[in-house]
Amino acid sequence: MSDINPLAWLRSSVRRPDTSSTAAAATRQAQLTKPPGSLGLLETLAIRLAGLQKRECPALERVWISVFAADHGIAAEPVSAFPQSVTAQMIDNFARGGAAISVLARQLGAALEIVNLGTVGSPSQTQGVLHQLIAPSTANFAETAAMSHEQLARALQAGYDSATRAHDDGCELFIGGDMGIGNSSSATALACGYGLGAPSALAGPGTGLGARGVAHKVSVLERALALHGPHLDSPLEVLRRLGGFEIAALAGAYIGCAQLGIPVLVDGFISSAAALAACRLNPDTRDWLLFSHRSAEPGHVILLKALDAEPLLDLGMRLGEGSGAAVAVPLLRSACLLHAQMATFAEAGVAGRQA
Amino acid sequence: MSDINPLAWLRSSVRRPDTSSTAAAATRQAQLTKPPGSLGLLETLAIRLAGLQKRECPALERVWISVFAADHGIAAEPVSAFPQSVTAQMIDNFARGGAAISVLARQLGAALEIVNLGTVGSPSQTQGVLHQLIAPSTANFAETAAMSHEQLARALQAGYDSATRAHDDGCELFIGGDMGIGNSSSATALACGYGLGAPSALAGPGTGLGARGVAHKVSVLERALALHGPHLDSPLEVLRRLGGFEIAALAGAYIGCAQLGIPVLVDGFISSAAALAACRLNPDTRDWLLFSHRSAEPGHVILLKALDAEPLLDLGMRLGEGSGAAVAVPLLRSACLLHAQMATFAEAGVAGRQA
Repeated sequence: MSDINPLAWLRSSVRRPDTSSTAAAATRQAQLTKPPGSLGLLETLAIRLAGLQKRECPALERVWISVFAADHGIAAEPVSAFPQSVTAQMIDNFARGGAAISVLARQLGAALEIVNLGTVGSPSQTQGVLHQLIAPSTANFAETAAMSHEQLARALQAGYDSATRAHDDGCELFIGGDMGIGNSSSATALACGYGLGAPSALAGPGTGLGARGVAHKVSVLERALALHGPHLDSPLEVLRRLGGFEIAALAGAYIGCAQLGIPVLVDGFISSAAALAACRLNPDTRDWLLFSHRSAEPGHVILLKALDAEPLLDLGMRLGEGSGAAVAVPLLRSACLLHAQMATFAEAGVAGRQA
Repeated sequence: MSDINPLAWLRSSVRRPDTSSTAAAATRQAQLTKPPGSLGLLETLAIRLAGLQKRECPALERVWISVFAADHGIAAEPVSAFPQSVTAQMIDNFARGGAAISVLARQLGAALEIVNLGTVGSPSQTQGVLHQLIAPSTANFAETAAMSHEQLARALQAGYDSATRAHDDGCELFIGGDMGIGNSSSATALACGYGLGAPSALAGPGTGLGARGVAHKVSVLERALALHGPHLDSPLEVLRRLGGFEIAALAGAYIGCAQLGIPVLVDGFISSAAALAACRLNPDTRDWLLFSHRSAEPGHVILLKALDAEPLLDLGMRLGEGSGAAVAVPLLRSACLLHAQMATFAEAGVAGRQA
């Protein structure tokens, strides 16, 4: 590492939501031809997005999705229902358009970039994937720190760089996705490391472990937390010891979005662990985070509570890749379109409430 | 009424979902590049729609929305936060494109028809509205039956006719919407009349009554139910005495859709009361009903339970017009697109679960 702290940017100040746009949007909502409050959360969302986008009528035509993929040393324990080779294979599937997030990005007309931060297998696709390799995988955090200081800095920077590309593209909403066999173990360890509870309370089936698999995962995580517990003295150190490249990249992207003024729609369990890391590293980041869905992964409820987050959807999804966030985008678009295009009582000549 | 029973069609048989398409869709879901079950309800929806649309890969490009508007004699009590003139004014607003459902129909690229079944006020728009006037309003059901036998038959037929037009248009999903000042009182009375509970358990604020308004609404409904209670001896008689033109039309449309083989996405409280009436009139109709959202109207939970319905969304909406159903359409589209376009494990060369 150089003499200059490569992570100083993490603490740089975040944009403030624009309160005058929020107020203008709230005034507009009250004039639209519907009983006040009858659009429920769609009203709240339009008003909140107005403040983030600094305009009375926000819009979400330009959506940007960055999927970060990386392998995890913890997969050696083993802790996943799927083999580690799947991470690299799925990068190819993303690039060829056959993965869930590929389909959803097409549905939304969203920009989709795949960022490969390092996998044990070798993806064959070169087109449509940014290969920003840090290492073939993190280290096994049941035995040692998942990342070196330099690796962590590179992963966070990779996320920030995605936020910058999204910003340069004129993006109105950022979605981060994750792919990495073993990453629900890393996300669970992070939640435990940030003090949300014990592995037995937070660990779940991930991609599909049975009861025995989950019990084994809990015991691996308990061993890891016993090893690292005495050293978890900063938010950054928790992330370095227990995180993954793609999770750190997501955290860096979220902080970057908040600094650049881009609203973020957070996906599920893995993304929420990254959001927690981001908010511990730079608490004002929270203003820029909207939460899309409640994952079927049982620990997600605890993560959402710690983030004071009320997600929009509860569909029992647990895929990652940013898929739950992508599915929720049309709801935000409806909120913006209703806000911008509905007639006011005065315009439509419709009578208001009776005295 | 003629000698021939004009309502015999109500009991005509409903299409059966195609079990071979359901089975083919379930097989396909299991091969897609994701952990089995990880798309949650989106998987279930794709499989169910496959059975309804009789094809392995269902689609929802062509969506049809019929909004039925009508006035209610019960508004004289009074039971609404808004004046009765709003029904006709909103018909104009629908036709001019300024209402919530107008905006959402544009977002979806859906066909939108407005059916005016009779209002006290006079809509000024002639273009874009089907005027199928039954009467300026129903009678006040706190004093007498809401509809004559002939009026009920005409309202049900108007709904069936909408389903027929949707069918002729090649519609892949039908949404019914409602507009009618006072119609939450009628919907609540129907739920009570069908045995779901007392007015005190089912009545809510509708478009925005305060606590005193709700208490008055409860007392009006108690009076109405005391009057009609001894005569509620058939599902049809419940609908005739306590319903509204637009609610009967929705019930007729739902039954028509089930007979014609069109999946229905049910909106909120008013639509669910109509769905309950439809299912009491022709129980197999239930197979064709999907439920979009849980309304903020407190009685909706009870209606949904009676219909064994698990809605997709819970956004605190309570607008009607079909708006909650329209907001949920992109979720169904995502389900269909993921089902049709995701690569299989074999196609993508992705490894499956470990032994």
